[in-house]
Amino acid sequence: MSIYACDWASIREATERIAGIVHRTPVMTSETLNRLSGKQLFFKCENLQKVGAFKYRGATNAVRKLSAAKAARGVVTHSSGNHAQALALAAQVRGIPAYIVMPKTAPAVKKAAVEGYGGLITLCEPTLADREHTANELVAKTGAILIPPFDHPDVIAGQGTTAVELLDDVPDLDAIIVCVGGGGLIAGCTIAAQSIKPGLRIFGAEPSGADDAARSKAAGQWLPQTHPNTIADGLLTSTGQLTWPVIRDRVEHIFTVSDEEIRSTMRLVWERMKLIVEPSGAVAAAVALSDAFRAITGVHKVGVIFSGGNVNLDKLYW
Amino acid sequence: MSIYACDWASIREATERIAGIVHRTPVMTSETLNRLSGKQLFFKCENLQKVGAFKYRGATNAVRKLSAAKAARGVVTHSSGNHAQALALAAQVRGIPAYIVMPKTAPAVKKAAVEGYGGLITLCEPTLADREHTANELVAKTGAILIPPFDHPDVIAGQGTTAVELLDDVPDLDAIIVCVGGGGLIAGCTIAAQSIKPGLRIFGAEPSGADDAARSKAAGQWLPQTHPNTIADGLLTSTGQLTWPVIRDRVEHIFTVSDEEIRSTMRLVWERMKLIVEPSGAVAAAVALSDAFRAITGVHKVGVIFSGGNVNLDKLYW
Repeated sequence: MSIYACDWASIREATERIAGIVHRTPVMTSETLNRLSGKQLFFKCENLQKVGAFKYRGATNAVRKLSAAKAARGVVTHSSGNHAQALALAAQVRGIPAYIVMPKTAPAVKKAAVEGYGGLITLCEPTLADREHTANELVAKTGAILIPPFDHPDVIAGQGTTAVELLDDVPDLDAIIVCVGGGGLIAGCTIAAQSIKPGLRIFGAEPSGADDAARSKAAGQWLPQTHPNTIADGLLTSTGQLTWPVIRDRVEHIFTVSDEEIRSTMRLVWERMKLIVEPSGAVAAAVALSDAFRAITGVHKVGVIFSGGNVNLDKLYW
Repeated sequence: MSIYACDWASIREATERIAGIVHRTPVMTSETLNRLSGKQLFFKCENLQKVGAFKYRGATNAVRKLSAAKAARGVVTHSSGNHAQALALAAQVRGIPAYIVMPKTAPAVKKAAVEGYGGLITLCEPTLADREHTANELVAKTGAILIPPFDHPDVIAGQGTTAVELLDDVPDLDAIIVCVGGGGLIAGCTIAAQSIKPGLRIFGAEPSGADDAARSKAAGQWLPQTHPNTIADGLLTSTGQLTWPVIRDRVEHIFTVSDEEIRSTMRLVWERMKLIVEPSGAVAAAVALSDAFRAITGVHKVGVIFSGGNVNLDKLYW
C-alpha cells in the first residue's frame, strides 16, 4: 500500500483498463533540439492523444472504473479546459452522460468542443464558488459522480500510464521532465516511473507566472497559486492535496521558464518537429532547453512530455 | 528491365542505400478524417522527414549512389524549394560540397535554410534560362554532378521508398493518393507500390491552379504547366520526360482540388492531427476528403502522403 493517493498496482491496472481506448502515443526525437539541449531528448507526444491532451487517460480510467450502476448515473466536472473535453469523450465512449459545468464567460470554441463530444453543459458564474455550487447541485439532482481534473486517485493513476509507455519505448532514460499545473500528470508519472525504475530522476516544469509548485518545494510546504499570469493557460491552478505530497517527496526539482522561453520553444517544436504543441505543452521542453537544466550533471537521456496540442489556430503565438 | 526510368530493383537498392540516413516516418490515422472521407485513411508523414519533406529521400539516394571520385567534386542543382535544402543536407552528410543556384528574388528564409545545411549558394536572375545557364557554368567550373529535383532515375527511385515503407506498415491498402508537381514522388511510389502489390490503385492529386497532369491525362498527351496559380507552391512545375510516362500508363486518375479545399484540409490536419503540413503537403488529403473521391467505389483503405511541412509560421494560412 502506497502512502500516496495511487500506487503502482493501480497504475498497472489503469494501463490495462484504458488499453485500446486511449492512443498509445509515439515518442519522437529531434536532432536540432538534442543539439540545443546538449542531451538526448525523447518527446512523449500526448499532443497526439485523443482530445489533444494527456487528460483523456485519467478521465478514461476514472470513467471505466465506475461500476455499471454508478456509471449509469453519469459523471460531472467543472472545467473549461482539456479535462472537460476528455471527460465528455470518455463518458460518450462508455455511453453515459457527462455534465460539464462551465463559466458563462468560456469561449464559444471551448463550449462547442465539449458539445462535440456529447457533453451536457451547464453554465455558471465565473467564480470558483459558483462552479462548485453548480456542480454539487448537479450531483444532488442526477446522482452523477464527480470526477475532478487532477486531485483524484483514478485520474492520477490514468495520467501515470504516460510514463509507463514512455519507459516501455525508451527504457534507459535517466530523467523525465513533466509540466506542473494541478500536478496530476507529474504525480502519476513519478509513481509509475520510479516503480519501474527506482531512482529515476523526475523534474517538474512550471511557467514563472504560475510557479506555486516551485515556491512550495523551495519553502518545504504547500503554497497556493494566486494571480497566475502566463501564456501557459493549462497550468494556472495550485497543486492538490493528493498531488503535492508526491511532488514534495519524489520530484527532485521544479524548474521555471518565462513566457518568452515557452513561446520560442513552442515555435521551435512547430518549425523543426512539425508538431503542434500548446503553450502549456511546450513548458517541459522549454525547461529541457534552458541553461539551468543544461547545468544538471549525470543526465543524458531525458524524457520530455508534450502534454497537449490544443491551440487557437486563428492567432499567431509569436 | 523496366520500360520506365526506374525499376523495382533500383527502388529496393535505394531502400537499402538510404536506410539509417533518412527517417523512417510514421503512419498516422485520424477518426475525424476517416469519418469525413467515408474511408480508412493512412497518412504517411513525410512532413516529419528530415528537411521537412520527402525530397530528402531522392536527394540522399542520388548523392549516396555517386562513386567516391564523382562525389568528391560535389553536386549542383537549381531550386529554391525543398529539393535545394534536401540536396544541401544530403551532400553535407556525405561530406561533399553542394552548389545551389537560387534566384536573387528567393526569400531570405529559404537562402538561410540552404546555408544552414551547408549549401553554397550562387544567385542568378529569376528566369529559367539564367538558372540553367548558371548551373551549367558551375558544372563546367567544378566538375560537380547535376542532381535535378525530379526528372532523374535515382531521385525517382529514392522517392519510391516512401511507398515501400507505407505498404510495409499497412500491407492491405487498396489505393494510394499522391500529389503531383514534377511527378518524382508519384512516379517512384507507383512503380514501388505496383511492384509490391500488382493492381494497387494509384491516384494523383493536383491543385486546380496547376493541373497540367490532370489535363495531360485527359488529353492523352503531355501538356506543360503555364502560369500556375495556387497556394500549393511546391506543385507549380510541369511533369518531366521520365515521370510523365509512369503517370500516363500506371496512375488511374488525377483529381484536382481548389485552394479553398487545400486550405481547409490543411487547417483540419493542424487542428485534429496536430501535424503541420504545408499547402502542397495537404493536397492529397484534400482529394481524399473530396466528393469526387468519395464517389470512387471499391476503395476502403487508402494511403495518403503528407509530402511536406515547411510553412511560414509568421503568417496565418486561413
